Amino acid sequence: MPVIHSATFSALPTTTSEQIAAVHAATQALATIPGCVWLKFGATLPNERAKGYTHQLVAEFESIDAVKAYVPHPTHKAFVEGNIQYFDSSKTIILDFEY
Amino acid sequence: MPVIHSATFSALPTTTSEQIAAVHAATQALATIPGCVWLKFGATLPNERAKGYTHQLVAEFESIDAVKAYVPHPTHKAFVEGNIQYFDSSKTIILDFEY
Repeated sequence: MPVIHSATFSALPTTTSEQIAAVHAATQALATIPGCVWLKFGATLPNERAKGYTHQLVAEFESIDAVKAYVPHPTHKAFVEGNIQYFDSSKTIILDFEY
Repeated sequence: MPVIHSATFSALPTTTSEQIAAVHAATQALATIPGCVWLKFGATLPNERAKGYTHQLVAEFESIDAVKAYVPHPTHKAFVEGNIQYFDSSKTIILDFEY
Protein backbone atom coordinates (compact mmCIF):
# COMPACT_ATOMS: atom_id res chain seq x y z
CA MET A 1 0.00 0.00 0.00
CA PRO A 2 1.23 3.52 -0.72
CA VAL A 3 2.21 5.63 2.29
CA ILE A 4 1.96 9.34 3.05
CA HIS A 5 5.05 10.35 5.04
CA SER A 6 5.18 13.73 6.76
CA ALA A 7 7.74 15.58 8.85
CA THR A 8 6.45 18.68 10.61
CA PHE A 9 9.05 21.16 11.81
CA SER A 10 9.36 24.21 14.03
CA ALA A 11 12.17 26.48 12.86
CA LEU A 12 14.42 28.01 15.52
CA PRO A 13 14.03 31.80 16.00
CA THR A 14 17.63 32.19 14.78
CA THR A 15 17.00 30.39 11.48
CA THR A 16 17.24 32.74 8.51
CA SER A 17 15.22 32.72 5.28
CA GLU A 18 18.46 31.95 3.41
CA GLN A 19 18.97 28.86 5.55
CA ILE A 20 15.37 27.79 4.88
CA ALA A 21 15.93 28.30 1.14
CA ALA A 22 18.94 25.98 1.41
CA VAL A 23 16.81 23.39 3.25
CA HIS A 24 14.18 23.66 0.55
CA ALA A 25 16.79 23.12 -2.16
CA ALA A 26 18.20 20.15 -0.25
CA THR A 27 14.79 18.44 -0.15
CA GLN A 28 14.96 17.94 -3.90
CA ALA A 29 17.67 15.29 -3.44
CA LEU A 30 15.35 13.41 -1.06
CA ALA A 31 12.83 12.96 -3.88
CA THR A 32 15.43 10.93 -5.80
CA ILE A 33 15.61 8.22 -3.13
CA PRO A 34 14.16 4.94 -4.50
CA GLY A 35 10.53 4.33 -3.51
CA CYS A 36 9.73 8.03 -3.15
CA VAL A 37 6.87 8.85 -5.53
CA TRP A 38 6.83 12.60 -4.83
CA LEU A 39 8.02 14.94 -2.10
CA LYS A 40 7.06 18.52 -1.26
CA PHE A 41 8.36 20.94 1.36
CA GLY A 42 7.18 24.38 2.33
CA ALA A 43 6.72 27.12 4.88
CA THR A 44 3.35 26.87 6.57
CA LEU A 45 1.06 29.79 5.97
CA PRO A 46 0.18 31.73 9.15
CA ASN A 47 -2.73 30.14 11.02
CA GLU A 48 -3.65 30.04 14.71
CA ARG A 49 -3.95 26.24 14.64
CA ALA A 50 -0.35 25.72 13.45
CA LYS A 51 0.79 25.38 17.08
CA GLY A 52 4.18 26.93 16.36
CA TYR A 53 4.99 24.63 13.45
CA THR A 54 6.60 26.57 10.61
CA HIS A 55 7.57 24.06 7.90
CA GLN A 56 6.38 20.69 6.66
CA LEU A 57 7.65 18.01 4.36
CA VAL A 58 5.02 15.69 2.85
CA ALA A 59 5.88 12.77 0.57
CA GLU A 60 4.35 9.67 -0.93
CA PHE A 61 6.21 6.37 -0.86
CA GLU A 62 5.41 3.17 -2.68
CA SER A 63 5.17 1.23 0.59
CA ILE A 64 6.13 1.35 4.25
CA ASP A 65 9.17 -0.73 3.34
CA ALA A 66 10.22 2.10 1.00
CA VAL A 67 9.95 4.52 3.95
CA LYS A 68 12.02 2.15 6.11
CA ALA A 69 14.72 2.13 3.39
CA TYR A 70 14.51 5.94 3.00
CA VAL A 71 15.32 6.70 6.66
CA PRO A 72 18.86 5.21 6.73
CA HIS A 73 19.58 6.10 3.07
CA PRO A 74 22.82 8.16 2.71
CA THR A 75 20.98 10.98 0.93
CA HIS A 76 18.46 11.24 3.76
CA LYS A 77 21.18 11.01 6.41
CA ALA A 78 23.09 13.82 4.69
CA PHE A 79 19.91 15.92 4.56
CA VAL A 80 19.26 15.46 8.28
CA GLU A 81 22.89 16.12 9.25
CA GLY A 82 23.05 19.22 7.06
CA ASN A 83 19.75 20.77 8.06
CA ILE A 84 18.60 19.54 11.45
CA GLN A 85 20.26 22.49 13.24
CA TYR A 86 17.68 24.89 11.79
CA PHE A 87 14.77 23.27 13.59
CA ASP A 88 13.76 22.49 17.18
CA SER A 89 14.21 18.71 17.00
CA SER A 90 12.26 18.19 20.22
CA LYS A 91 9.14 19.45 18.39
CA THR A 92 9.56 17.57 15.10
CA ILE A 93 6.66 15.20 14.34
CA ILE A 94 7.22 12.29 11.94
CA LEU A 95 4.14 10.43 10.73
CA ASP A 96 3.40 7.73 8.15
CA PHE A 97 0.00 6.41 7.13
CA GLU A 98 -1.05 3.89 4.51
CA TYR A 99 -4.00 4.71 2.34
CA MET B 1 0.17 27.99 -6.48
CA PRO B 2 -1.01 24.55 -5.30
CA VAL B 3 -1.24 24.02 -1.56
CA ILE B 4 -0.66 21.00 0.65
CA HIS B 5 -3.20 21.11 3.50
CA SER B 6 -2.79 18.82 6.50
CA ALA B 7 -4.76 18.17 9.67
CA THR B 8 -2.98 16.08 12.28
CA PHE B 9 -5.14 14.50 14.94
CA SER B 10 -4.84 12.74 18.28
CA ALA B 11 -7.72 10.31 18.83
CA LEU B 12 -9.27 10.21 22.30
CA PRO B 13 -8.61 7.00 24.28
CA THR B 14 -12.37 6.29 24.13
CA THR B 15 -12.53 6.44 20.34
CA THR B 16 -13.27 3.05 18.81
CA SER B 17 -11.99 1.59 15.54
CA GLU B 18 -15.58 1.61 14.26
CA GLN B 19 -15.77 5.35 14.90
CA ILE B 20 -12.46 5.84 13.09
CA ALA B 21 -13.77 3.78 10.17
CA ALA B 22 -16.76 6.14 10.01
CA VAL B 23 -14.43 9.16 10.06
CA HIS B 24 -12.41 7.62 7.25
CA ALA B 25 -15.57 7.05 5.20
CA ALA B 26 -16.68 10.63 5.88
CA THR B 27 -13.41 12.06 4.51
CA GLN B 28 -14.38 10.88 1.04
CA ALA B 29 -17.05 13.59 0.86
CA LEU B 30 -14.39 16.22 1.65
CA ALA B 31 -12.55 15.28 -1.55
CA THR B 32 -15.58 16.40 -3.56
CA ILE B 33 -15.33 20.00 -2.35
CA PRO B 34 -14.36 22.29 -5.28
CA GLY B 35 -10.63 23.08 -5.44
CA CYS B 36 -9.60 19.87 -3.70
CA VAL B 37 -7.28 17.95 -6.04
CA TRP B 38 -6.89 14.88 -3.80
CA LEU B 39 -7.38 14.03 -0.15
CA LYS B 40 -6.10 11.12 1.93
CA PHE B 41 -6.69 10.14 5.55
CA GLY B 42 -5.16 7.41 7.64
CA ALA B 43 -4.06 6.02 10.96
CA THR B 44 -0.42 6.81 11.63
CA LEU B 45 1.84 3.81 11.88
CA PRO B 46 3.46 3.40 15.32
CA ASN B 47 6.64 5.50 15.64
CA GLU B 48 8.30 7.13 18.64
CA ARG B 49 8.38 10.51 16.88
CA ALA B 50 4.60 10.65 16.37
CA LYS B 51 4.24 12.58 19.65
CA GLY B 52 0.86 11.05 20.40
CA TYR B 53 -0.67 11.88 17.02
CA THR B 54 -2.76 9.00 15.72
CA HIS B 55 -4.39 10.13 12.47
CA GLN B 56 -3.65 12.55 9.68
CA LEU B 57 -5.50 14.04 6.75
CA VAL B 58 -3.37 15.35 3.88
CA ALA B 59 -4.84 17.03 0.81
CA GLU B 60 -3.81 19.09 -2.18
CA PHE B 61 -5.77 22.19 -3.15
CA GLU B 62 -5.53 24.24 -6.31
CA SER B 63 -4.69 27.39 -4.32
CA ILE B 64 -4.85 28.92 -0.87
CA ASP B 65 -8.13 30.54 -1.93
CA ALA B 66 -9.50 27.03 -2.51
CA VAL B 67 -8.48 26.12 1.05
CA LYS B 68 -10.17 29.29 2.36
CA ALA B 69 -13.38 28.26 0.54
CA TYR B 70 -13.09 24.65 1.81
CA VAL B 71 -13.05 25.59 5.51
CA PRO B 72 -16.57 27.14 5.67
CA HIS B 73 -17.99 24.79 3.00
CA PRO B 74 -21.12 22.94 4.25
CA THR B 75 -19.60 19.53 3.53
CA HIS B 76 -16.51 20.42 5.59
CA LYS B 77 -18.62 21.89 8.39
CA ALA B 78 -20.73 18.72 8.50
CA PHE B 79 -17.54 16.62 8.62
CA VAL B 80 -16.14 18.61 11.54
CA GLU B 81 -19.43 18.61 13.45
CA GLY B 82 -19.91 14.87 12.90
CA ASN B 83 -16.39 13.75 13.76
CA ILE B 84 -14.62 16.28 15.96
CA GLN B 85 -15.72 14.48 19.13
CA TYR B 86 -13.41 11.55 18.36
CA PHE B 87 -10.24 13.65 18.62
CA ASP B 88 -8.54 15.85 21.22
CA SER B 89 -9.21 19.21 19.54
CA SER B 90 -6.64 20.97 21.71
CA LYS B 91 -3.91 18.90 19.99
CA THR B 92 -5.12 19.19 16.38
CA ILE B 93 -2.56 20.84 14.07
CA ILE B 94 -3.77 22.45 10.83
CA LEU B 95 -1.11 23.45 8.32
CA ASP B 96 -1.06 24.73 4.74
CA PHE B 97 1.98 25.30 2.55
CA GLU B 98 2.33 26.38 -1.05
CA TYR B 99 4.80 24.57 -3.23
